[in-house]
Amino acid sequence: MLQEITGHTRLTGLLGSPVAHSISPMMHNEAFRQLGLDYVYLAFDVNTKSLKTAVEGLKALNVRGFNLTMPNKNLMCEYVDKLSIAAEISGAINTVVNENGVLTGHTTDGTGYMQAVQDAGHSIIGEKMTLLGAGGAASSVLVQAALDGVSEIDVFSIRDQFFPRAEELVDTINKKTSCKCSLYDFEDGSILKKSISESAILTNGTSVGMSPNTEACIIKDMDVFRSDLIVSDVIYNPRETKLLRLAKERGCSVFNGLYMLLYQGAEAFKIWTGQDMPIDLIKEKYFSVS
Amino acid sequence: MLQEITGHTRLTGLLGSPVAHSISPMMHNEAFRQLGLDYVYLAFDVNTKSLKTAVEGLKALNVRGFNLTMPNKNLMCEYVDKLSIAAEISGAINTVVNENGVLTGHTTDGTGYMQAVQDAGHSIIGEKMTLLGAGGAASSVLVQAALDGVSEIDVFSIRDQFFPRAEELVDTINKKTSCKCSLYDFEDGSILKKSISESAILTNGTSVGMSPNTEACIIKDMDVFRSDLIVSDVIYNPRETKLLRLAKERGCSVFNGLYMLLYQGAEAFKIWTGQDMPIDLIKEKYFSVS
Repeated sequence: MLQEITGHTRLTGLLGSPVAHSISPMMHNEAFRQLGLDYVYLAFDVNTKSLKTAVEGLKALNVRGFNLTMPNKNLMCEYVDKLSIAAEISGAINTVVNENGVLTGHTTDGTGYMQAVQDAGHSIIGEKMTLLGAGGAASSVLVQAALDGVSEIDVFSIRDQFFPRAEELVDTINKKTSCKCSLYDFEDGSILKKSISESAILTNGTSVGMSPNTEACIIKDMDVFRSDLIVSDVIYNPRETKLLRLAKERGCSVFNGLYMLLYQGAEAFKIWTGQDMPIDLIKEKYFSVS
Repeated sequence: MLQEITGHTRLTGLLGSPVAHSISPMMHNEAFRQLGLDYVYLAFDVNTKSLKTAVEGLKALNVRGFNLTMPNKNLMCEYVDKLSIAAEISGAINTVVNENGVLTGHTTDGTGYMQAVQDAGHSIIGEKMTLLGAGGAASSVLVQAALDGVSEIDVFSIRDQFFPRAEELVDTINKKTSCKCSLYDFEDGSILKKSISESAILTNGTSVGMSPNTEACIIKDMDVFRSDLIVSDVIYNPRETKLLRLAKERGCSVFNGLYMLLYQGAEAFKIWTGQDMPIDLIKEKYFSVS
């Protein structure tokens, strides 16, 4: 199944910064090998300054497609020819496919997250969610959760330059889906506490707590962690963020961003190759939670 | 020695059109694997229209370097920051190395060819050469042969748009080297015949006879093939061009462009990695002449 790289082998990859330690190259290259598909996947350190030139170059090189990670997910929307519905609503792209020079942007983070919820043994359809953050990953989670039937989502974001975009996104979701969505200032601690008390799941969609800042925790008030609350993190490095550790200590069910990463990758793989990633094998080899 | 492609693996490659059937990806990837170097080499179908965008993109992607083949060798000179001496004189680049965003263009075709002459058991230093063509590959052969001490080179080229550039090149060689170099119109059959009769080696540096036009032969008058003439071709597909077959039938020593390809690749490899390509292994695996 291992195959030789030849003049026919086509490139796929990941554009972000930093990216050198990403699991994605291993995941995709192993899946290509397992299925005998003639592609390779490489990571490229590209930021918002170099993104446009890199994307135009990848188009000239006729690559099959690529993933986007921080800090490129939002900006990428300006450089594609078409957008999937979820990418259009969320304003974020993590997967691009190139069909004869026409670039289409998708976001598979949201479906990846929703699949990870299922994998963790939970059903949140018809339930309420408290979502922290409104950046690329959080927006995708928000849109997909709303589309899939989560009944109510409270989004908490700091009042930075992205807040107006988050307001628009919440408006769009309220118009286009049956989900009741509200946006709050993250600094409103009492509203946050009330929201979590009404929610089945609390999701951290920010990078707070990510390596190397592993001592950071987005939640300060440990009283929100009641034992029937599900607490999840889109972060997978470290495997257990301080948020997840503290929540677990209080009896919450917790899961990290590892399977979200796996499933967003599997959906990107399907978009590029038309084939299903061998999930169980990839899980075992690269996503063991232990 | 086989290694996994990770987020640290760096890209190298080939830009040309067509390129899908190139041996270069196999040669370089095998050499990377053998030496445990963390690179991959891919081929990209890029022509003179898409070259600039592709090169800017590769710079933004921070690739280690790349090769150029037809039709990009001359145009590439416009897109590098620095040129090696041989690349500057020949006006052709087949290898680019990227040092922190600074692109330097080299031409390793000429040294590749001169090494192939040696490998075929010949010494042409101090001898006269008849060289057919003045394109990218021929220019590199011309410059390196002159630099290495071939005493006299007659270049024959058709009077196309590149002829004035060839005139300049020949002038430069006469100024900068001790080689006596002359440019003639390829249509002057009697001058060509006289030149070959005085030469130790006749080199086809054009693509005449290359697959799929294997019935073409740049030499029409078989009487030029005396038994002590060396006849060589930069073409390696087919392994035996009609030129080489006819020359061999008349008793000439002949060799094709396969080892030129090998040695130009080995020098590019050295420029990118600082290490020597495992020549014998690569020869055996991909360059068996049988």
